[in-house]
Amino acid sequence: MDGPASILVVHAHPYPGASRAGRVLLAALEGLPETELRELYSRYPDFDVDALAEREALGRAGLVVWMHPLHWYGVPSLLARWFETVLAKGWAYGEGGTALAGKDCLWAVTTGGDTVAYSPAGRHHRPFADFAPPVEGIARYCGMNWLEPFVVHGAHAIPDVALAAQAHALRARLEAWQAGRR
Amino acid sequence: MDGPASILVVHAHPYPGASRAGRVLLAALEGLPETELRELYSRYPDFDVDALAEREALGRAGLVVWMHPLHWYGVPSLLARWFETVLAKGWAYGEGGTALAGKDCLWAVTTGGDTVAYSPAGRHHRPFADFAPPVEGIARYCGMNWLEPFVVHGAHAIPDVALAAQAHALRARLEAWQAGRR
Repeated sequence: MDGPASILVVHAHPYPGASRAGRVLLAALEGLPETELRELYSRYPDFDVDALAEREALGRAGLVVWMHPLHWYGVPSLLARWFETVLAKGWAYGEGGTALAGKDCLWAVTTGGDTVAYSPAGRHHRPFADFAPPVEGIARYCGMNWLEPFVVHGAHAIPDVALAAQAHALRARLEAWQAGRR
Repeated sequence: MDGPASILVVHAHPYPGASRAGRVLLAALEGLPETELRELYSRYPDFDVDALAEREALGRAGLVVWMHPLHWYGVPSLLARWFETVLAKGWAYGEGGTALAGKDCLWAVTTGGDTVAYSPAGRHHRPFADFAPPVEGIARYCGMNWLEPFVVHGAHAIPDVALAAQAHALRARLEAWQAGRR
């Protein structure tokens, strides 16, 4: 229960306006106190990530949220670029690299496939959890606390009411996190 | 034993000249017949991947090699961008998306960590195989045959003689693959 109560949401969606799920989840964050949203695709359309600015934003946060639709079983390429650029040796890991140590990390991810698709008999052949190790590994290698991921499956077809419930659940998690910090 | 005997090596290394392992492995490919090497970082320094050109190259190949150093437990961001741009719905998957179906896919990856690092007690906490599902999933979703990956661990510290043996093994695998096609 130490560290800043601020939340940084790093959002990576190439076409956020075209995504119903993305819109609804983002709307659920509106008005949360001490919460900064950084939209990577509008900020860095040329993939030229400003590492210093991103590190400053990370420094202000106690909870870092990586929020994105699943692309090819992982993060969108601009978020991969963000990892490479921002999480440098000597800053995020390695000798002297303790800038993120002790911060909490929440992976908030939407998938097109439903839970049936993410099963041995489904079209992705594996449970979704099998695709988590790379993202979890990044957080842990930087000394962050990996929280239980927030996952919305079937994001294309999810009924409005179910999506609204998911958005509510996301906001509730962030509010509860902040409450625990105060 | 059908399809073209050509090999396409899609190589994604931001600083190939600075990588001893990358140099030695690439040198092992020199002179292989019917083998095309596409260096993504020199070809697309601005991340603006030419999907049509890449698809043409893929169309010529019977074996596609994705070759790169592991970055944050996955592919370098430019290769992720390549996946997103080139492997479009209706071409690589989905209705009518059969362009890659039946081709073989070899993941050729180097890691900084050694096999001790990729173990429960090591600094990456998991066996390396736990990080393969996303890349394997991409190949399989496109209907490609996933070959046993070619992995060089400890790429920074591997002795010259061991690295040379690995390079020889890579070349031998590609030669054997071509021999099987003729």
